[in-house]
Amino acid sequence: MCELLGMSANIPTDICFSFRGLAKRGGATGPHVDGWGMAFYEGKGCRTFKDPKPCSFSPIASMLEDYPIKSQLVIAHIRQANRGKIALENTHPFTRQLWGRNWTFAHNGQLSDYKKLDLGNFEPIGQTDSEYAFCYILNKLQQRYPNKPKNWPTIFRFVKSCADELRMRGIVNLLFSDGRYLFVYCSTHLHWITRQSPFGKAKLIDEDMEIDFAQHTTPNDIVTVVATNPLTSNENWQKMQSGTASLFKSGEQIF
Amino acid sequence: MCELLGMSANIPTDICFSFRGLAKRGGATGPHVDGWGMAFYEGKGCRTFKDPKPCSFSPIASMLEDYPIKSQLVIAHIRQANRGKIALENTHPFTRQLWGRNWTFAHNGQLSDYKKLDLGNFEPIGQTDSEYAFCYILNKLQQRYPNKPKNWPTIFRFVKSCADELRMRGIVNLLFSDGRYLFVYCSTHLHWITRQSPFGKAKLIDEDMEIDFAQHTTPNDIVTVVATNPLTSNENWQKMQSGTASLFKSGEQIF
Repeated sequence: MCELLGMSANIPTDICFSFRGLAKRGGATGPHVDGWGMAFYEGKGCRTFKDPKPCSFSPIASMLEDYPIKSQLVIAHIRQANRGKIALENTHPFTRQLWGRNWTFAHNGQLSDYKKLDLGNFEPIGQTDSEYAFCYILNKLQQRYPNKPKNWPTIFRFVKSCADELRMRGIVNLLFSDGRYLFVYCSTHLHWITRQSPFGKAKLIDEDMEIDFAQHTTPNDIVTVVATNPLTSNENWQKMQSGTASLFKSGEQIF
Repeated sequence: MCELLGMSANIPTDICFSFRGLAKRGGATGPHVDGWGMAFYEGKGCRTFKDPKPCSFSPIASMLEDYPIKSQLVIAHIRQANRGKIALENTHPFTRQLWGRNWTFAHNGQLSDYKKLDLGNFEPIGQTDSEYAFCYILNKLQQRYPNKPKNWPTIFRFVKSCADELRMRGIVNLLFSDGRYLFVYCSTHLHWITRQSPFGKAKLIDEDMEIDFAQHTTPNDIVTVVATNPLTSNENWQKMQSGTASLFKSGEQIF
């Protein structure tokens, strides 16, 4: 399968610590060697670093572990291929444009009969069930809201109903964002944690590394991290229930 | 203004040497300090590295100068902002999807009255005249070919007519690609060179660096490089005429 990592924060925050833990699972402490990617939002802009090679041996990943790009919203993915060959076009996360915003999508799971999904004008480029699911959701959004909608949480409640439909075809743990909101849907495995004042120490599971967040934050900071499996051993991660969704904005849970 | 760099090759080729010369113009030997980006195609996949910071001081650019990503088609851009603030969403190249392919666009120039262009469903995310021009061309393509077309060179002749229309509004030097074809349109400044056997030595203008391509190629290699201004001092670059276009595939000129 794959592993997901997402971040929503109320101030631009770097994800180096969490990514360091995840990256190890891309070949060193985990079997997810079939590519990886990480999308960073800055305002309406979005840039995605991706590589079809194993994350734990990637010069691009090494650069990102050391270069603290600060962002309020990040989506990352390490891949263990099932549907679709190992190739750049099949490497998550995927980004497409709708309503003048960049939408980003990453998926963990496997779907059957995904080629029957109605995708409208959103034609997939690669062969993954994941990109089909992404195109399906965007097409549903465009059909449901022919004009650009205004009530954003309502849009994401509609996205949950799309994810519920996809879950009839298999496993859909997913992260989905327009750059302001981080939508999270759990089919089997997803955990999250919100870090805020008073900040404490955190210790990575996949590497002998500890950080004292109190030394890197201000008392107003709120940062939520979502991951397939907890990344730290000494913090209290929330386990999501199957078939549930959450929406985060600026680190805080909307639903 | 800005500077453009494109490459079309018949085998996966790294662009480290040319990018090294271009990158210097992003703050060291040139004034293009308002961001930069470089898109690499691998098959139908595409990944873009971009940064709103000056190229010549960017850790991401340094990584790319040393890490030879091999590709048959590359589009790069260094920015000196005119329309649109310095921001990630205004950093070229831009990529969007149409007909199951990634389309990439980079622009050097300035347009007036660009907000009057008919963009259909292709809504810009940033504020640049360039992204408006990109959305304009994609919308014209979708309108002209409601079904996915088959004769690709004909499509690019139609793109030339779109670029001719844009030139009525200002300066449009541009690079445009679907990952197989590199379309080049010259409004004021663009040069290109095709390197093939017998290969010789090339010397960068912007840095004291020389390469002997004979040591890095096979006799069958064909590589075309397009740039706003020549990057090497001892080679014979072709200067494009105003209002002309060229199309390259696998390093060879189609028109």
